Amino acid sequence: MPRDVAMPPCPIGRAVEVLGDRWTLLIMRNASRGMTRFEDFRADLGIADNVLSIRLARLDDAGLLTRVPYRSGRGRTRQEYRLTPAGADMTLVLRALADWGARHTEPTEPAEPMQFLHQACGHHLTTPEAYCDNCQQTVQRQDQLWVSPWRASAPYPLAEPVTPRK
Amino acid sequence: MPRDVAMPPCPIGRAVEVLGDRWTLLIMRNASRGMTRFEDFRADLGIADNVLSIRLARLDDAGLLTRVPYRSGRGRTRQEYRLTPAGADMTLVLRALADWGARHTEPTEPAEPMQFLHQACGHHLTTPEAYCDNCQQTVQRQDQLWVSPWRASAPYPLAEPVTPRK
Repeated sequence: MPRDVAMPPCPIGRAVEVLGDRWTLLIMRNASRGMTRFEDFRADLGIADNVLSIRLARLDDAGLLTRVPYRSGRGRTRQEYRLTPAGADMTLVLRALADWGARHTEPTEPAEPMQFLHQACGHHLTTPEAYCDNCQQTVQRQDQLWVSPWRASAPYPLAEPVTPRK
Repeated sequence: MPRDVAMPPCPIGRAVEVLGDRWTLLIMRNASRGMTRFEDFRADLGIADNVLSIRLARLDDAGLLTRVPYRSGRGRTRQEYRLTPAGADMTLVLRALADWGARHTEPTEPAEPMQFLHQACGHHLTTPEAYCDNCQQTVQRQDQLWVSPWRASAPYPLAEPVTPRK
């Protein structure tokens, strides 16, 4: 997927070539929550402009985000970064990181735990494969709601992917 | 877990603080396959000595690897790096990366796909939660065999964790 890197036979190694970077993982987390705009990533992550530009360009190149024009408040056309199907397919990677982080790390300031819900019935999806004990089915990404209580109490759906036009 | 970093309320963010680094993820993959020695990590990853030293020290600090003395061929006592329970608990993170990598990236040279087996019955564990359709149960880490055909055709168990003595 990235054009300039030799991709190893190991699929973990290949995933790491694309995703194995602190900023990249945080950008993809935020994009999964629905963040699309340069200014919002910059403000939320406290990342330098040039570093953010490089990461977003790489993610666009790798087909995990895609640039889509939008009209800013001042009537200018700008680009936002929307999740692609390959980017949206990181759901389990993010969920596995969330579960590992919840088990093996502590927040510096006390924080309520992240939660995962079945949109249809509101039950908690406690296992990473998102099996709903109430409905006795595995819940697809688009039928999940995630809750990040330190940001807002309202559950949010994961961002809907758009297919790149390239 | 790392002593010098402010840990955010988001568990994904906290996991990324510990794991969100290319070398760290590759070291933890290799440690999960049973690699323990400095020289082996260096040779397999092609990583510079000082970079590897820093990463291993950080992983020891963070409680994902633990230093254990062993006798080298020349009778000298040296340190190897063994997986801890927190390190071993990265199985789903690695599996999620493997699945994402298999779906969304291509190796530069053709390679047979990575496989995941149930040790007891030999059936393929095709879902990330490692559910065995044959035995109708979720297969725990210690009952899985992984296969990396580009390295060796033999399936291997995941490294057994040791509890740090600190």
